[in-house]
Amino acid sequence: MFIVHVFVHVKPDRIEDFRAATLENARNSINEPGIARFDVIQQQDDPARFVLVEVYRTADAPAKHKETAHYQKWRDTVADMMAEPRTSVKYTNVFPDEQSWPARRLRAGISRNISH
Amino acid sequence: MFIVHVFVHVKPDRIEDFRAATLENARNSINEPGIARFDVIQQQDDPARFVLVEVYRTADAPAKHKETAHYQKWRDTVADMMAEPRTSVKYTNVFPDEQSWPARRLRAGISRNISH
Repeated sequence: MFIVHVFVHVKPDRIEDFRAATLENARNSINEPGIARFDVIQQQDDPARFVLVEVYRTADAPAKHKETAHYQKWRDTVADMMAEPRTSVKYTNVFPDEQSWPARRLRAGISRNISH
Repeated sequence: MFIVHVFVHVKPDRIEDFRAATLENARNSINEPGIARFDVIQQQDDPARFVLVEVYRTADAPAKHKETAHYQKWRDTVADMMAEPRTSVKYTNVFPDEQSWPARRLRAGISRNISH
């Protein structure tokens, strides 16, 4: 797996705007076939800091993600919410192993209809 | 969810020892009822750096984890592998929401017998 942690520091008055835009992006991203997880977490002692925990199944999946309409909308929407430029660190999985991540969501279309 | 990212920097000649000890700890930790995920990831551009991505279901689960024999064995085993003291950051989940994390592993005992 190809794992990217994206570190985000938003302006204090844009925290809720960022949460909303990023939730929408995450709900769409998790339905991409190349994405196994797309967690969004908020730092307890500084709620203006978030991490996007992105787990890709293949080496080309990050590039495909950046071609999607939902990513590009998110990127443009959050641009002026940043307190400083985003940074990222790339990882590979030690545990769980390749077979232990959730299978591709074949029913993504159905689940999206139900949940939205 | 109560999420802790533990940042580990190991001595360069202890990377494989750390991987082995941490895999054993992760395989046991994921069977704790209070733990939803216990990912171990290794930094791509510096394989001496790891992150333990720990996702706890309840506020008291981290303390219960530290009471387990497997955690205490891991802590003692890796103590002299550290290049510098571990640090950690605490987060709460934005996405997925509380209902979307995997259910408790009721068959933990069975799966452990199969996989070991």
